[in-house]
Amino acid sequence: MELIKPLSIPATGTKLSPEQAMKLAISEAYKGATRVSPNPLVGAVVLDANGGFISCGHHEFYGGPHAEVNALKNLSSETLKGAHVFVTLEPCAHEGKTPSCAKMMAKLPLKKVTFGLIDPNPLVAGQGADILKNAGIEAEVFSSQNAEEEKEIKTQLEEVCEAFLWNFRKKKVFVALKMASSIDGQVALKSGESQWITGPQSREYVHYLRACYDAIVVGKGTIDFDNPSLNIRHPEIKKDNKVVVIDGEGELLYRFDELKLSQVHAAENIFWCVAEEAKERVDKTLSKLKKTPQIVYVKTNVGGDLDLEALLAQLYAKGLRSVMVEGGAMTASMFISSGLANRLYMFQAPIIMGSGGARSWTETVRISEMKNKIHIKNPRYLTFGNDFMITGTLS
Amino acid sequence: MELIKPLSIPATGTKLSPEQAMKLAISEAYKGATRVSPNPLVGAVVLDANGGFISCGHHEFYGGPHAEVNALKNLSSETLKGAHVFVTLEPCAHEGKTPSCAKMMAKLPLKKVTFGLIDPNPLVAGQGADILKNAGIEAEVFSSQNAEEEKEIKTQLEEVCEAFLWNFRKKKVFVALKMASSIDGQVALKSGESQWITGPQSREYVHYLRACYDAIVVGKGTIDFDNPSLNIRHPEIKKDNKVVVIDGEGELLYRFDELKLSQVHAAENIFWCVAEEAKERVDKTLSKLKKTPQIVYVKTNVGGDLDLEALLAQLYAKGLRSVMVEGGAMTASMFISSGLANRLYMFQAPIIMGSGGARSWTETVRISEMKNKIHIKNPRYLTFGNDFMITGTLS
Repeated sequence: MELIKPLSIPATGTKLSPEQAMKLAISEAYKGATRVSPNPLVGAVVLDANGGFISCGHHEFYGGPHAEVNALKNLSSETLKGAHVFVTLEPCAHEGKTPSCAKMMAKLPLKKVTFGLIDPNPLVAGQGADILKNAGIEAEVFSSQNAEEEKEIKTQLEEVCEAFLWNFRKKKVFVALKMASSIDGQVALKSGESQWITGPQSREYVHYLRACYDAIVVGKGTIDFDNPSLNIRHPEIKKDNKVVVIDGEGELLYRFDELKLSQVHAAENIFWCVAEEAKERVDKTLSKLKKTPQIVYVKTNVGGDLDLEALLAQLYAKGLRSVMVEGGAMTASMFISSGLANRLYMFQAPIIMGSGGARSWTETVRISEMKNKIHIKNPRYLTFGNDFMITGTLS
Repeated sequence: MELIKPLSIPATGTKLSPEQAMKLAISEAYKGATRVSPNPLVGAVVLDANGGFISCGHHEFYGGPHAEVNALKNLSSETLKGAHVFVTLEPCAHEGKTPSCAKMMAKLPLKKVTFGLIDPNPLVAGQGADILKNAGIEAEVFSSQNAEEEKEIKTQLEEVCEAFLWNFRKKKVFVALKMASSIDGQVALKSGESQWITGPQSREYVHYLRACYDAIVVGKGTIDFDNPSLNIRHPEIKKDNKVVVIDGEGELLYRFDELKLSQVHAAENIFWCVAEEAKERVDKTLSKLKKTPQIVYVKTNVGGDLDLEALLAQLYAKGLRSVMVEGGAMTASMFISSGLANRLYMFQAPIIMGSGGARSWTETVRISEMKNKIHIKNPRYLTFGNDFMITGTLS
């Protein structure tokens, strides 16, 4: 989330190129990052007939007004005469929780609407544009005469609503993987000691990231070693989040009542994933608990581990659309090896832990030839205090 | 080298704050990076009586004019009336290969000279400043009212001549360590395959770095696996460099004539480090070679490996003042473990190689408690295409 540096809102009348306007719309879109799921992040920018900046807006929260509505509200017909609207996603044609944006804009004296991406639903793609065209408003997909800049902006446009696009295209949960390591790739000492690798600025950003996804996923090792709260602790964000624990044998379930996790979260916000085969034992354990999490039964693969693809399908069925995997080493390795991680957030602290006495986040990932190495696509680098973070897509 | 983004030279008359002037002087200093060793990198900036930019200069090559001379040349007394000179290091008081800069400046109608660091030689420290003061010119060490900025600039001032300061203070070789890894810290597959991890922009920068140090250091494994040329291949740099090979048993010496290394470099530019105990065998091998490198005999430590500290002392005795260790994994680990690396250049490519089937650059580094982790101080991050590089000091 917030894969680009936020742009500041220009003064009224500032001339913006189409590229600048679309980048500003993308920057605006990210402002909704912690509140719109499972809707897409969308941003909009309005320029006057002379290309001067008038206003901008974004989709602020799930069920709330769309970006176009927020950008265009309180503007007079006089102001909007000949105006050009830039929006990151094709304006919606249908009435859902809110009225159709295309129909709303069709009534305004706009000259043109440029949108970043066509509606991903092939059944309605182009319908928003058609409504505008029928009202005499130009409507077109964003393009640039600068091919390199167009490519970069198109990438940013896909990124800003990547979870939504993935959900829509694949009917699957979008998986982000967050890791924090030393610069030599180690995430914990062999003793299990791992706190703290990164600094306070990185850690605050991780709490922001938690709020950008529907749930946090951890393996049982993390629960066992660290007994974490896995809630969102961020000065500007108040949000209850969901937690998914992968514990095939249900080994830690008997301790559920004593875990910080169970004290901090409502029972229905905790999804405990166990093997289908463990049902009888799990039922017995649950009967002894004061509070019980949601149990997610998952089929196992040949090796006896939970089948991660099946696990994600179950989470999708339970309404989750995006998760952030937060480790530990074994869980991260499994998601990497299985090719099920979509986006990586890799924080690195300027320290060396030494692989001779520590654990790497890719300890079970084996590559036999360089041509099979795993690429992080569209990598971006951000710094947080003395740490840095690389983020990019894995699939 | 070039640890900061180069600053562009401002237009004549542009007003610069003392902080801006000193940062520009530092940026200028780096321009000499590939040609001044073992002299320090030094830069100078001249502002007019109103604080407007007049000129700048740097120490361009070993034995050439000092930064102050380059910055002040061709300027009339009229122009220099009341001028303020910023220089990264105290102007020299003594006559060496070039006349004394302090004496040269004492003859000019300057108002003030601000220098970044006092001469590291305690016997002459302050003498340059005294010469100026006796001529009625204010002379002072740089300071800023902004404590944070002062700290950052002082760090940069130390960094820009770090090898020189280390040589002077410790009478030891300054050791940079360059590594290129995947983001999970792997430098080669178990098969030995490692080309290419990083992209062409990173690799070009490595050739620049090679030119910034007196010699490249590699272990025998690198020679054995890759048979590298280890010369400088950079579009803008033409320079013969020196190479140090660590091969305690002299195992690869018999193949010396066939190595690319021996074809590309003059024999006197190759330093082959072997154990004192291996002398007899080495002599026999040498007698069979057409061309023979310089042999550096080094005492061994308890484990039978070459004692790295003794090795560096030998290189210092042979006139080397700074080296860049380029691996492989074993050699890098040894320098990290022994605490003998001063600066790290860690390139990372946005790829995952998987530690399950690869080798880490810290494979023999063992840390048992987090409080003993090794810190990279004053870390800086630079990007090269899709790669990034972290650099900072280790000791």
